[in-house]
Amino acid sequence: MATNGHVNGVSNGVNGTRQNLIPSASRLKKGRALAQDVWSIYNVANLPADCINLGQGYMNFSPPQWIKDAANDALATVVANHYSHPKGRIRLREAIRNYYSHDFGRDLNVETEIVVTSGANEGEPYDFVHLNQYLIQEGDEVIMFEPFFDQYLACVVFNGGVPVYVPLHPDMSKDKPTGDDWKIDFDELRRAVTSRTKIIIVNTPHNPVGKVFTRLELEKIAALAEEFNLLVLSDEVYDTLVFDGKEHIRFATLPGMWDRTVTVESAGKMFAATGWRVGWLIGPSWIMHPTLAATTRIVFCSNSPMQEAVATGLEQVASRGFIENQLQEYTERRKILTDALDKLGAKYTLPEGTYFLLLDISDLKWPEDYPFPDSVLGRGRDFKACWFMAMEIGVSSIPVSEFYCEEHVDIGENFARFAFCKDTETLKRAAERLQALSRFLR
Amino acid sequence: MATNGHVNGVSNGVNGTRQNLIPSASRLKKGRALAQDVWSIYNVANLPADCINLGQGYMNFSPPQWIKDAANDALATVVANHYSHPKGRIRLREAIRNYYSHDFGRDLNVETEIVVTSGANEGEPYDFVHLNQYLIQEGDEVIMFEPFFDQYLACVVFNGGVPVYVPLHPDMSKDKPTGDDWKIDFDELRRAVTSRTKIIIVNTPHNPVGKVFTRLELEKIAALAEEFNLLVLSDEVYDTLVFDGKEHIRFATLPGMWDRTVTVESAGKMFAATGWRVGWLIGPSWIMHPTLAATTRIVFCSNSPMQEAVATGLEQVASRGFIENQLQEYTERRKILTDALDKLGAKYTLPEGTYFLLLDISDLKWPEDYPFPDSVLGRGRDFKACWFMAMEIGVSSIPVSEFYCEEHVDIGENFARFAFCKDTETLKRAAERLQALSRFLR
Repeated sequence: MATNGHVNGVSNGVNGTRQNLIPSASRLKKGRALAQDVWSIYNVANLPADCINLGQGYMNFSPPQWIKDAANDALATVVANHYSHPKGRIRLREAIRNYYSHDFGRDLNVETEIVVTSGANEGEPYDFVHLNQYLIQEGDEVIMFEPFFDQYLACVVFNGGVPVYVPLHPDMSKDKPTGDDWKIDFDELRRAVTSRTKIIIVNTPHNPVGKVFTRLELEKIAALAEEFNLLVLSDEVYDTLVFDGKEHIRFATLPGMWDRTVTVESAGKMFAATGWRVGWLIGPSWIMHPTLAATTRIVFCSNSPMQEAVATGLEQVASRGFIENQLQEYTERRKILTDALDKLGAKYTLPEGTYFLLLDISDLKWPEDYPFPDSVLGRGRDFKACWFMAMEIGVSSIPVSEFYCEEHVDIGENFARFAFCKDTETLKRAAERLQALSRFLR
Repeated sequence: MATNGHVNGVSNGVNGTRQNLIPSASRLKKGRALAQDVWSIYNVANLPADCINLGQGYMNFSPPQWIKDAANDALATVVANHYSHPKGRIRLREAIRNYYSHDFGRDLNVETEIVVTSGANEGEPYDFVHLNQYLIQEGDEVIMFEPFFDQYLACVVFNGGVPVYVPLHPDMSKDKPTGDDWKIDFDELRRAVTSRTKIIIVNTPHNPVGKVFTRLELEKIAALAEEFNLLVLSDEVYDTLVFDGKEHIRFATLPGMWDRTVTVESAGKMFAATGWRVGWLIGPSWIMHPTLAATTRIVFCSNSPMQEAVATGLEQVASRGFIENQLQEYTERRKILTDALDKLGAKYTLPEGTYFLLLDISDLKWPEDYPFPDSVLGRGRDFKACWFMAMEIGVSSIPVSEFYCEEHVDIGENFARFAFCKDTETLKRAAERLQALSRFLR
């Protein structure tokens, strides 16, 4: 208490002069970058203790033992406990080259076309920060499709960029919509391009819609990028999670696109290791060179033992059939959730990829006098729906309007995002609990 | 080759339009942020295969086994493989509170006064980036003492800040100088403060000088901070490496300073784990709050298994007497190097802290026709000296003028930085080799 008094005393003492210590922070306050983020509102700490967490996109299971063994092996060496090359450990870069060169249709250069980053976060915002630090100047515009992963926004505005939003339009009339029923209005996209547009962010498979962009859609985006000389950040971190044989198209492989595209990948998504913080960027040397310069100067390098483990992962993933097995597991996980929603008669977007599913909550109704906390008031109705479901049904989710700009909240507020990167036991319990929603569906 | 042809072809294809894709990058080009950095020039890849690397400040020994065991234990859990709270894992924040509260003379608040970061880099540039992203606006001035760790510079200029350099003045006349013989000219420091000055960066123990700032020096800096309402970033990552009973003063503990100071710490330095990328910031909530907001939005969180291991480290460090033992080891390491230089009759600054030693190379002479590579030409003479010693003596070091602005290169070019965070065997071999310098000392 005495200590607190001391702080307060000091604080008050300089209060009058603080105004010039704290900047107006326009970089941060643009958009909602300093508003209470959705992750804090729906944090487990704020929800019932036994609430099943399908909100946040992390697994409640471990990375595979053979990759954890590789981490232990790395810790047992001297070098893997110390700084790595800013580009990433050479073994990892070689593993990345070997894994991706076929997909990209080119022999990736480990020295100039691959940079390992510290991000394994959803959407790899960290990577974008590095890139954007260099690429974005005050007033440059960055186009992103809504719903956008909220971290993109911060990365753009931090660097003085201006986000420009182009919504994906869900076909609300469809009885059984899939990701493919969320459409780009290409006239709208074209109108969004100005002389200040620098970058367009593509995310396929798309979080949170679960949409896997079609070749035609990507080709139309590519044509615009060509016409208006835009860079493309292609967030493909869910590329190992594409269901039902749908084809994942790498944006960089479209004609003419390699030289203007940076592809973002993540070990966290691939190996169920979201806390390992290892990701990578693949792109042409003219973009990767300044990106590396920024990375070197900002973080110097990513954590070393986990890089070694991830290298083992990429080296052995094919011979172990790991991706195929994991996809099969995720297919089963998705089915547990969709079976439950089908039984309930609830409407949702069937994801073609990722481990997210959007529940259409436009038909959900809760008691008018239900006590909501201040944090969800004044936001889209999905904020209330997610809160209500967490408290009354015992399953947490994330409101999708968080991923829309203010003007387009009316689209996003119809949806709640459920993450099914959880073990089947958890998903089955969630599936049971969700049946209780029937009382609240109109 | 065909692939390369393809790249080149595409590159050439858009060359004409690239000018508007690549910004002028004034943020990066200010200072020398995009020049070839010293770490790349003196990279082991460019030096003789058997060259003993005393250039870079990473250990050639492992973190202690009991901390690596803790990392293994963390990997064996589910949760420690996934996202951590952006503030840092609660166990680590509690360990930080318990370890530092006595030192800081206050009960640190784990929710508001501690943020775990992804940096364990020298000088924790990463942490500064987060902080500066929020605190620095275009044109704000940041004072740093020369020699400054080069990563500070990038972090300041990246955010549109203007570095202002105040050199530490070595007493070149001293026969046996110590860190204490590098002095601040306080009139010069005062003249460096303008109405745009926002931050002053303090680094004690100081890399690369090895100076442990005295209470009087820090009090004078504190008085200026108070008078001109400045924030202080106090980089104290070498605080566990202070020799000969010299007292390390925490800047934040000076009267009135807590509320305007952020202290930077590093597990990499403390536990010989530079590749683990775990550091932490300690400071008042009014600064830590926006710093956390930036961290959350940029990296989301630091890598989880290493955080758990570091928590174990801090929890057990006292009962194991680890810091005392480690300091004893570093004292021996320092002695191997200083004995060798004494025997040689070479002049150097005896470090009071850190694991760096500055060799005075002003008396070193090399053949006039010695073949130097382009990368060291046109830089301070220390660049040549370090190259020459690496090639001819077989011991690498880092030229200190890299840590000075252009105008003050003449001070820095008298010194080469040797890192003695190496095992005694390696240091003994280096000590022997250094005797060959006698032929080149005037």
